[in-house]
Amino acid sequence: MDSIMIYVPIIMAIIGLLFMWIKRAWVLKQDAGDGKMKEISDYIYEGALAFLKAEYKLLTFFVIGASIALAVVSFIVPTTHILIVVAFVFGAFFSALAGNMGMKIATKTNVRTTQAARTSLPQALKVAFGGGTVMGLGVAGLAVLGLTTFFIILFHFFMNGTWTSTEDMTIVLETLAGFSLGAESIALFARVGGGIYTKAADVGADLVGKVEAGIPEDDPRNPATIADNVGDNVGDVAGMGADLFGSYVATVLAAMVLGNYVIKDMGGNIQDAFGGIGPILLPMTIAGFGILFSIIGTMLVKIKSNDAKESQVQGALNIGNWVSIGLTLVACFVLVKYMLPETMKMEFFGEGLKDISSMRVFYATVVGLAVGGIISSVTEYYTGLGTKPVMAIVQKSSTGAGTNVIAGLATGMISTFPTVLIFAAAIWGSYAFAGFYGVALAASAMMATTAMQLAIDAFGPISDNAGGIAEMSELPKEVRTRTDILDSVGNTTAATGKGFAIASAALTSLALFAAYVTFTGIDGINIFKAPVLAMLFVGGMIPVVFSALAMNSVGKAAMDMVNEVRRQFKEIPGILEGTGKPEYGKCVEISTKAALREMMLPGILTIGFPIAIVILGKLVYSDNDQLTAEMLGGYMAGVTVSGVLWAIFQNNAGGAWDNAKKSFEAGVEINGEMTYKGSEAHKAAVTGDTVGDPFKDTSGPSMNILIKLTCLIGLVIAPILGGHAVETGVALKGQEVRVEMMVMDDDAAEATVSYATIVNGKEVVKEKRFVGTTLEVKAQVEAFRDGVKVQIEQ
Amino acid sequence: MDSIMIYVPIIMAIIGLLFMWIKRAWVLKQDAGDGKMKEISDYIYEGALAFLKAEYKLLTFFVIGASIALAVVSFIVPTTHILIVVAFVFGAFFSALAGNMGMKIATKTNVRTTQAARTSLPQALKVAFGGGTVMGLGVAGLAVLGLTTFFIILFHFFMNGTWTSTEDMTIVLETLAGFSLGAESIALFARVGGGIYTKAADVGADLVGKVEAGIPEDDPRNPATIADNVGDNVGDVAGMGADLFGSYVATVLAAMVLGNYVIKDMGGNIQDAFGGIGPILLPMTIAGFGILFSIIGTMLVKIKSNDAKESQVQGALNIGNWVSIGLTLVACFVLVKYMLPETMKMEFFGEGLKDISSMRVFYATVVGLAVGGIISSVTEYYTGLGTKPVMAIVQKSSTGAGTNVIAGLATGMISTFPTVLIFAAAIWGSYAFAGFYGVALAASAMMATTAMQLAIDAFGPISDNAGGIAEMSELPKEVRTRTDILDSVGNTTAATGKGFAIASAALTSLALFAAYVTFTGIDGINIFKAPVLAMLFVGGMIPVVFSALAMNSVGKAAMDMVNEVRRQFKEIPGILEGTGKPEYGKCVEISTKAALREMMLPGILTIGFPIAIVILGKLVYSDNDQLTAEMLGGYMAGVTVSGVLWAIFQNNAGGAWDNAKKSFEAGVEINGEMTYKGSEAHKAAVTGDTVGDPFKDTSGPSMNILIKLTCLIGLVIAPILGGHAVETGVALKGQEVRVEMMVMDDDAAEATVSYATIVNGKEVVKEKRFVGTTLEVKAQVEAFRDGVKVQIEQ
Repeated sequence: MDSIMIYVPIIMAIIGLLFMWIKRAWVLKQDAGDGKMKEISDYIYEGALAFLKAEYKLLTFFVIGASIALAVVSFIVPTTHILIVVAFVFGAFFSALAGNMGMKIATKTNVRTTQAARTSLPQALKVAFGGGTVMGLGVAGLAVLGLTTFFIILFHFFMNGTWTSTEDMTIVLETLAGFSLGAESIALFARVGGGIYTKAADVGADLVGKVEAGIPEDDPRNPATIADNVGDNVGDVAGMGADLFGSYVATVLAAMVLGNYVIKDMGGNIQDAFGGIGPILLPMTIAGFGILFSIIGTMLVKIKSNDAKESQVQGALNIGNWVSIGLTLVACFVLVKYMLPETMKMEFFGEGLKDISSMRVFYATVVGLAVGGIISSVTEYYTGLGTKPVMAIVQKSSTGAGTNVIAGLATGMISTFPTVLIFAAAIWGSYAFAGFYGVALAASAMMATTAMQLAIDAFGPISDNAGGIAEMSELPKEVRTRTDILDSVGNTTAATGKGFAIASAALTSLALFAAYVTFTGIDGINIFKAPVLAMLFVGGMIPVVFSALAMNSVGKAAMDMVNEVRRQFKEIPGILEGTGKPEYGKCVEISTKAALREMMLPGILTIGFPIAIVILGKLVYSDNDQLTAEMLGGYMAGVTVSGVLWAIFQNNAGGAWDNAKKSFEAGVEINGEMTYKGSEAHKAAVTGDTVGDPFKDTSGPSMNILIKLTCLIGLVIAPILGGHAVETGVALKGQEVRVEMMVMDDDAAEATVSYATIVNGKEVVKEKRFVGTTLEVKAQVEAFRDGVKVQIEQ
Repeated sequence: MDSIMIYVPIIMAIIGLLFMWIKRAWVLKQDAGDGKMKEISDYIYEGALAFLKAEYKLLTFFVIGASIALAVVSFIVPTTHILIVVAFVFGAFFSALAGNMGMKIATKTNVRTTQAARTSLPQALKVAFGGGTVMGLGVAGLAVLGLTTFFIILFHFFMNGTWTSTEDMTIVLETLAGFSLGAESIALFARVGGGIYTKAADVGADLVGKVEAGIPEDDPRNPATIADNVGDNVGDVAGMGADLFGSYVATVLAAMVLGNYVIKDMGGNIQDAFGGIGPILLPMTIAGFGILFSIIGTMLVKIKSNDAKESQVQGALNIGNWVSIGLTLVACFVLVKYMLPETMKMEFFGEGLKDISSMRVFYATVVGLAVGGIISSVTEYYTGLGTKPVMAIVQKSSTGAGTNVIAGLATGMISTFPTVLIFAAAIWGSYAFAGFYGVALAASAMMATTAMQLAIDAFGPISDNAGGIAEMSELPKEVRTRTDILDSVGNTTAATGKGFAIASAALTSLALFAAYVTFTGIDGINIFKAPVLAMLFVGGMIPVVFSALAMNSVGKAAMDMVNEVRRQFKEIPGILEGTGKPEYGKCVEISTKAALREMMLPGILTIGFPIAIVILGKLVYSDNDQLTAEMLGGYMAGVTVSGVLWAIFQNNAGGAWDNAKKSFEAGVEINGEMTYKGSEAHKAAVTGDTVGDPFKDTSGPSMNILIKLTCLIGLVIAPILGGHAVETGVALKGQEVRVEMMVMDDDAAEATVSYATIVNGKEVVKEKRFVGTTLEVKAQVEAFRDGVKVQIEQ
């Protein structure tokens, strides 16, 4: 029987989407300005739509191809249901829909922010953050709505809406993994493709416009200008949105998988007010309440004074953020107390079954909420304007580009020290509190305020665009000053947002990794087996090569752009005098095509390697799927560890270089002399920033997708590796199902059911154990015996 | 009873050292030139001695401190013997001695090479390579002599020179690990300190000399010139020598440890012509023969024509190299056949005991020899003059320093792809052939020709110095042309040598890692335990932070040098006119002090972290040393995987940038135009090279030491983690030692001895199993029962 609790997340999601719709209507009602402003804004909007259209076309092919592959898998592997294809398609669709809504509102909000900035700073903030809120709630609302709805459907389809066994629930969750895989696949296109797009347009516009033609940035005579502005939205809005959408869904899914195994460890079923699936519902419910608290948080983001500075704007964002985090903390406490059994049993590898009180699960969520905040602060320390590491890079610029680059690289590298130590402590801590279920719930708690995080994050590129429009439309200086304040805050939130994104990706991957191990039923991943160790090495290499490919892609795509801009300068008469009209659309098209073309190779690398490892393992160890599963696990661990390191390194180095360069705008003291833009030191800093651009906007953020997608593919492949088939209780036709029961005293019994099944083509006798009160065990054994499906094979 | 075979490696080592002595006398007998040449050469020699002296002073303190720490450990841990301290001191001493001899001969050979180049190119090659040969044979001879002698002494001390049991041999090898630890500690100073020294002097000399004072490179008026030339010897000769000395010793040691466990897997003893320790002696013997074949190889390196080009010189080196590798291959076949039982039993984790024929061990050595060669070729492809990746960097230089840097980074990153795949295949392959013993023997075979590799390697910096002396002494142009040919070949061998060094470090670390796991007696390393996974993350971070620290150190040390040179330019009258005499010694001193000061922090990081993890583990899991051992193992794996990646990335990026810059000397075609030195593109390439310098000469090569030292420290710590105590058969006082014997037929029996012992403070009943012929088993059981030590504890 369903508990009403199962529908609570859906209700929250719908509230979130309703609020989003109201906010959206409000934003669209704002004055969109006139004349040149509107014209430029329309170009950006159309460019963004053009990218989305091209992306959707490619996506359609991809989704069809992947669906066929998944369908084939579902035919080969008896425990994988064809419904996984439906889940996959919907996951992809929901993620694309969220991205679409986000991009549209962001490109509509920018010009309205510019217009609002003509009135006052508080109004500009309200509009810009309103746009961000629409984006955030859209992503979070659709994610929770989609995931929860699908779960309920599958729960009814496979289990009739009533708890039967961990094995049946595993089939539900394995099918649900398709939804997550779909969402993350879109993220691959949006984040990697978007990252290439934004930098290709940026670099291409600069190389010909600024360097060759000598016209300033954001000049409407440059045909690549619009593509550049579209890029901000494609990369920073749609890319980040898809990234967090994917993390959000994957985290909740992994926590549900591990919740299912908590129930298993407790003897196969529990009695609670939620139909016996409290530990599975909990992560969804936390996500639901997180949407509610994010709404409250967004409502607190406002300033009163028109003379407010960066610190007040940042303060307003912080208040909203901390309130939503604080409320989530309280909700975690209440929900954990309410929804979980007071004491649970959890299996700790090598330490056996332990009694875990529900309070310990709450502590794990505290760890998750704390980590999100701390990592953001650490990121800010290494990349913020005026911080010690950034000022050190500024100083090193005086001796040339070489020393500036070395200093930036070293800063990014050293920033891994505190970040990784915090991760390690978080993994260890949340695991010590409540096993891998604790790790997954730490991630869930952290992701609960995704809507708020995204609102803060999307507000940055919106303000950036607003400033660009102000500049291009030659509005009064005070307008630009106001948007600059918002933009400057946006730069900080962009850096901390990247910290949040990588922290979430890391914890999500670990939770998926844990779900993978439990799905395959292996005894852990022993890197003292040489094939596993070899795969750990290979996994470690992938993020490095992926990053290099992404960086090279930016270079190649930028060259396409350069050639197109050169062509237009030559062929369109009067273009440089401002009388001829540049073909903005052509540049958008070039950038779009190049981005989607160039993301192919990294994409194939990401998807192909796990599959290649499974094939290799199956070929070499045809009689030992468990070893193949361990090899794939070693690969996943290698990708995750190395990917997290390279993400931190690249994001922070890039962020630090960027702000080191920006420091020259206000002037910096080097060796006792004030140094400004245009100095030799500034030129050195510009070189550093050029290196940092693909680091922080393309290859660095792509790592998030790489590690999550790798672990998700592992999870989807898991059933092929057989371990799971052992658990479902498929007995052979004609084989007796034998039950051995031992009543220990009046109230406790233990039973073992043995049956023959097929594992990797061989007949194997399997056992299933039940423990509990005598009556319970008897009932379970009966249910099991009745439920055993008889295979057609002889 | 000893077999004579045990003394064979010593004899080979002595032959090697004798040959070295003869070669040394020959080199020293060569004409050392006159006038300015001699003066400059003397300065370099004295500068090198000054560095060595300062290094030895610091080393003395370090060795005393580390010895005390080791002595304390040997008091706390009953199975660690105080003799480990003696082994440690001797290991450090032998490595330092080898470094000393190498540095001295290199700094004596340089001017003699210059002088020989006045006569002919063949003669110059003969002298330069003669110096390299002395270096190579000194390192290899001392390594084998020291390790083998110590092994024999300990074998007699602990076991009376007769095989008793794996447990007793474990104590011998654990003590011998002290020798390896001593050697690797020196490598830390030589490689990391040397790496900082060489780049600090280089950068410091350039920044003030070239940039500020406008005098050319290698100009004797620059006070830092001598330090710069000393740096080449300190970094490339002594650093590389100590690195390979350490790898050589550690590899052989690890193979011996694993050989001991092969004997254990075969029932605790074997009958062979080598006193029952054939599998343990084999790696030492291969090393011994390797010295002999290296001598033969070096004798083949010669050219006839005075008009020879780079390709002929390279060809001569190749012939020598391939002949020595080929002979080693043959020796491996013969020795494996001769020294190993025809069929062995080896335990494969998760797959049980397997029968392994000795031929499979031979195949593993083939894998090792092949990997060494292939990795060198791959390195050459990514870094060599005129190769596709290097030319791509050259092309990217036309759009500025930023794109040049990105291209270089991307090249280094992509180069991890084939390299890691080859490693993974080598690990998997050699393990599939003969377990971790196979991995260790692959490494041993690869390292067997260390003398030859080092001869080729040291020949480079000698030729480089010879060219510098020719320049500074204003010798005729043909002299410089001849040394340039040698120098150019030396650049190639430097790159391939780095490939060899990292390949050897990687395989050595894996062998040590395997030895660690067997020493601690854990069931492998399961990264599905969160604390272990957390340590995998932490381990992965260490190489990144270590690299950053080393890079920053170069910057700081270079600034010290800059200040000193500025001071001399200001205070010494007539220095820039060539009438005042620069104080070269001061610069050497500054560089020396800075290098040794700056290597402290990375050193502490390397040594401190494993110890901190053990302390942390002991505190948190006081009742579970096995988990702590797994955590340390996870850390070791993280350091190794990440360290190998960062070594490849940094070495190859640095090498590629260097040659991209060098390409401009002969001119390159960019966008259809020939471009030369002094162009904007060249300046961009110089910036790339500045970034690459610390990459390829400081942080990149340091990774080798970091990963080996980490694994060695783990190995030395292993006995503290208790697993080992279980294996030694320490029965409790008053407890019966029970024997259960089963005679299976006339000729085969199996016995189990059970006894009580203390593990982690708890009484545990342990079993020891014997199999073999009935008589053998009886004898072994008796020996074991007699040998059981009765603990004083109640």
